[in-house]
Formats: sequence, structure tokens, C-alpha cells
Amino acid sequence: VNVAGHPTRTIWLAPNGVTVRIIDQTKLPHAFVIAELASLADAADALREMRVRGAPLIGVTAAYGLALAMRSGASDAQLENACEVLTATRPTAVNLRAALRYLRAALQQVPEAQRVSVAYDLAAELAERDVADNRAIAQHGLELLRPLAEKRARLEVMTHCNAGWLATVDIGTALAPVYAAHDAGLPVHVWVSETRPRNQGASLTAWELGQHGVPHTVIVDNAAGHVLQLGNVDAVLVGTDRTTAHGDVANKIGTYLKALAARDCGVPFFVAAPSSSIDWSLTVGADIPIEERSAREITHVGGRAEGDDDSQVSVQLLPSGTQVSNFGFDITPARLVSGLITERGVCAASARGLAELFPESARG
Amino acid sequence: VNVAGHPTRTIWLAPNGVTVRIIDQTKLPHAFVIAELASLADAADALREMRVRGAPLIGVTAAYGLALAMRSGASDAQLENACEVLTATRPTAVNLRAALRYLRAALQQVPEAQRVSVAYDLAAELAERDVADNRAIAQHGLELLRPLAEKRARLEVMTHCNAGWLATVDIGTALAPVYAAHDAGLPVHVWVSETRPRNQGASLTAWELGQHGVPHTVIVDNAAGHVLQLGNVDAVLVGTDRTTAHGDVANKIGTYLKALAARDCGVPFFVAAPSSSIDWSLTVGADIPIEERSAREITHVGGRAEGDDDSQVSVQLLPSGTQVSNFGFDITPARLVSGLITERGVCAASARGLAELFPESARG
Repeated sequence: VNVAGHPTRTIWLAPNGVTVRIIDQTKLPHAFVIAELASLADAADALREMRVRGAPLIGVTAAYGLALAMRSGASDAQLENACEVLTATRPTAVNLRAALRYLRAALQQVPEAQRVSVAYDLAAELAERDVADNRAIAQHGLELLRPLAEKRARLEVMTHCNAGWLATVDIGTALAPVYAAHDAGLPVHVWVSETRPRNQGASLTAWELGQHGVPHTVIVDNAAGHVLQLGNVDAVLVGTDRTTAHGDVANKIGTYLKALAARDCGVPFFVAAPSSSIDWSLTVGADIPIEERSAREITHVGGRAEGDDDSQVSVQLLPSGTQVSNFGFDITPARLVSGLITERGVCAASARGLAELFPESARG
Repeated sequence: VNVAGHPTRTIWLAPNGVTVRIIDQTKLPHAFVIAELASLADAADALREMRVRGAPLIGVTAAYGLALAMRSGASDAQLENACEVLTATRPTAVNLRAALRYLRAALQQVPEAQRVSVAYDLAAELAERDVADNRAIAQHGLELLRPLAEKRARLEVMTHCNAGWLATVDIGTALAPVYAAHDAGLPVHVWVSETRPRNQGASLTAWELGQHGVPHTVIVDNAAGHVLQLGNVDAVLVGTDRTTAHGDVANKIGTYLKALAARDCGVPFFVAAPSSSIDWSLTVGADIPIEERSAREITHVGGRAEGDDDSQVSVQLLPSGTQVSNFGFDITPARLVSGLITERGVCAASARGLAELFPESARG
């Protein structure tokens, strides 16, 4: 996807072939800052502080983090330690675990001396696989959306959080079909929920759609039901941080509320789910661990100081000392999901639907 | 209700018997500021800028605004003009319209010379009626909640926006039963949604519950579904800005999403609806006009500057120039409402339920 006219990914190897560059997403939309990761600690920090976020992107970042870790020591013990450090940064998304499991198993098979180069190769392979998966999701999703666009002058999509190219290495998951539609000349408009507490919709989705020229309108999360009631939406399209083998979906907190409203208003609710986000070991969504994050994400909010193009400031919203709970994700039960858009096609959000597309992964 | 130990209402006549004092709610929770309304323009501004808000309170404020208007001229034309100015400030809540209709009809019957004193008397009467209604709602609601508290060590209530004493002259509507439970020694805990875009939950509900010593936890609006899914809530209790004769409820944007989640999780969803908030002329919620407010409520957010006890600053959240929609209310259909708590008791959210309690108001 283009940023200011230049094709840009969210993570790439620096010209030195060693350090890893990311877009620091905590600075968006007010500043476009590239950060350099040079160590395991840098990668873990970027994950924990959500400089990179989005299930597919954190998988790839964890893989590169492991490669960086191997540079300062590639013994079995150091491999185990690096995996533990990276796993602990974010508990909900399965991609992080799956990527680390994949690299760990491969690295255990090769001598220490080769582990650095193999880790870099595998991280690059995961990045390319993510881009290829998202290209396929874009096409399958476009086929799904095209008939809906015939109902009115333009296609109206509602999304939640950011499952765009910023959540992946490139292209995006939920927004991939939107970009495909836009690029194919289909008039498309996106309803973007701000996505409290971190405002990824307002700050990331609005920014990346704007960069690509896709018309969009930001609403508060509370307004999603009303916009659906008004009949202004053809489809709700979201990403997933972890999907169970039976089709339950863990995604950004508030997704469940949108799924309920879509169902109540007769609007299809689709989840863009690359197979990298499917946890074949789980069936029930309630078994997915839900990350609880810092109270400060709720008590304070950051933004651009008025009359100032540069400085970002944080203001306190709540009375001092107020108790808060900050769950990062919720579970949308499969019964509310109209379909899963995977890289192999669209299927029902069910054990059977997933097993038909991924027979080699599904358990008997 | 007490503020810093002193019984305080949200609106009262100044000792001069002429000007009207309000708590400027846009300054809460970081500063407790009393503002003085001396004219029609002051009252209209306080309503429009939401220095006072909450359906019952804006009804009483509009009544006092009319009294202030009569002081500078009480002709029929001036009466009409004042009613028009005040009506235009907020379109959704019916209390404002009902209060103005009541005063206007009464004032038309008396000579110009008496209109000022009659208007002040009627405004005071509406204020007292609001307090009496809320006392009754507190008791009816408490009877409803008490059996639910037996399920666990404490009663868990979820609310939305602010329907506490700050939304009324005193006591509150949705929070009235909560205060009654707390004062009766029943352990009660409230889940408070921050209520974007204006954060009335985070800034007003959290503040007033804190002042009264009621335990509470603030969550983002997005988290309401997850908290309900976890089984942490015994009842959802909200206010209403306008209820139709068939029980559809217009309330703060996001209420509909909570009602859907409560239904999906098997949790009762009650609406505290003083009869002053019932619009007997409407049956279908979709006919209620929904206020659209300034984009700035979404693009910017205000709070307390860090390291500073006084200054409040506003920061920009969205990329400059982003298009936004800002609906103030949504409609919760009667089918999702477990019961309406009125000053005459609890009834089904239906034409029949309301007609049984208010036979003199319901239309054949």
C-alpha cells in the first residue's frame, strides 16, 4: 500500500540486512515515524507497547525478534528464553504463538551456527506468506462484496479496530477486500469505529484509508448499532486475533457488540481469517485467554496538542483514583458470524466449514 | 445527593430569587464550577453546550429559561420566541418539549404582568415533581434489584451514560435504585461505560458515584459485551430521553448495543422512565428525531493536562479533515427492554404495560 505515494510495508529488513524497521504505530496518525529494532528487547518492547499490533503483523514481528535474539547467542537455552520473552508480550493473538512455534521447531533442527540465518529466512518467509494470504483474502472477499454493492450506488462496509495493511505486513485482512473493491473501481465507503481505548480505528484505519483515497466516516463505537439500524451498511467486515476450530472469534474488544447489532439488523457479519489466525487446538472461544491491559489506556488519552503540528500530549479523562477494567478482546460466538474469509475461500464459521477448507489442519 | 458532604441539587434559584444556578457539567470531573443563568440566552447556551444535560434536568432548565425570558418581556410574541429558542437547543429529549408546552399553555392563560412569577412557580413545581418521581423510582427499582442481589455477595449493575442525580434535579433515574440499595446497606457495584463521545459515564457517573461512596469500575463502551458475557452483571439499568407509548426507548448512543448484549447474555435490561420522559404521541421509536452533534466531539477530546490540577486542554484524535458522523442517541426497541421503572411502579415496555399504569395519558 502507498504512503504519500510510496509503496510501503509495515515491517522490513534495513539495508544492513540485520536490523528490522517498523512503522511506530503509536505515533500515527499525527506523525509517520520509522523505528529500528536491533535486539530481542527492542522487538519485545515494540510488541508490548503496541508500536506494532494486529495479529498477522505481531506474528512476523515476533519471528524477526527471534532472529535478532539469535544474533546475541543461539544456544538452546537462549532460544527458549527468547521464545518465552516474546510469547509473554501479547497473550490473545495466536499468530505470535504459531510463528514462534514454527521458528523454534525449525531452529532446534539446525546447528547453532546456522540459527541466525535460518531465523531471518523463516521470518521473511512468514512475511511473504502473510502478503500472499492477504492477496487471496482480498479476491475472495471482493467476490463476496460485489453482489452486495448492487443494492445501492455504493458499497457500504463497516469495520472495527484496524485490520488493514497496518495490522499485517501489507494489504490487510478485513480491509483487503475493501482495497480490492476500490482499486477495481467499485465505489466503496467505510464506516470506521474509533475503537476505544486505543483508538486504532480513528487513528490507524482512518489514516490508512485516507492515504489510499478510500472514502470513510469515523463514528464512535457506541454509534455502530444506530448506523446499522438506519440501513446504512451492506456488510460488517472485521479481522481476528484468534479463531477456534469451531469458528468462535477473538477480536478487538467491541467486536461482539457489532456482531449482535449486525444480526439484529439483518446485515451479514464477515471475519477475514487467514489460517495463520486459526487455533486448531481450541474449540470454545471462552477458552481463549483475554489480555487485560493497563488502566492508563482508559484513564488517559493522547492526541495532538491544539495549534501545534508536532507535539503529542496526554490528558486525563477520569477522576483520579477511579477503578477501571481494560479487556483488550472479546469473543464473538460462531453463531453470529456469517462467514470466514480465508486465503482458500469463504467458509461457514463452524468445525465443518473450516475442516472442508483445511482438512490437513482440522482434527478428526 | 451530597457533594463533598453538602446536600446539593443540580439546579436552584440564587438567593436573589431571580438568577438560576447550575453545576457546569462540562467542567466535571476535574473542576466543580457553579454557573449563573441570568437570561434566555444563558439558559439556551447551557442547554446547547450541555452544561446541563439529562432529560429530566433539561426539562427543568428549559422551564427556568422561560421564566428568565419573561423577565425581559412577557408578551405573547416574546413567549413564543422564547419557546422556539429553547426547543431548538436539543431535539431528542421529550422533557424539554413537555416542560415548555406545560408552561406555555399556563402562561397564555394569565395576564402578561403575572407571567414572570407564574413561570418561576411552575419551574419550581417541575423541579419538585422530578425529585418526587425519582424518589418513587428509587423505591420501585430497589424492590426489583433486591432479589437479584441474592445470587452473589454483591449486586452488580451496569449502566450507560449518566442517568444519575446530575441528569436530574436530584437523586437520578437509573442510578436512583442504586443509591437506594447502597443507602439500605445492600452491597452494590456499578459497571460504568465511559460513554463516548462526551464521556458522561467516565466523567459524570464515575464522579457522582465516587462522591456518594458507591463502588464502581469504569470500562470502555466496547467492553460492555465482554463484561456481560463473563456473567459479571445482574442487571443493566439505563435512563431514557424519550420513550414512546409502545415502549421504544431513545437514549444515549450505544444503549441499543448494551440492550442487545444483555438479551444475548440473559441479563435483564431495565429502563428508568419517569412519565415525564414518555411521549404519548409516538408509538414507533424510529419516529423520534435523533440529534446530530458537532464533529468536534469526536475529533477532539478534553481532559486535565498532566501534572496540572487546574488546566483543561483539548487534544486532536483524528487525522485532520477526517469525515465523521455524530449521532447523539439511538433507539432500543421495546422487545429488548425487560421493564420500565416509572414513578408509579414497574411495567412491561409495551402499549398495554404503559396504559395500565398511566390510563389517563395513554390513547385509546
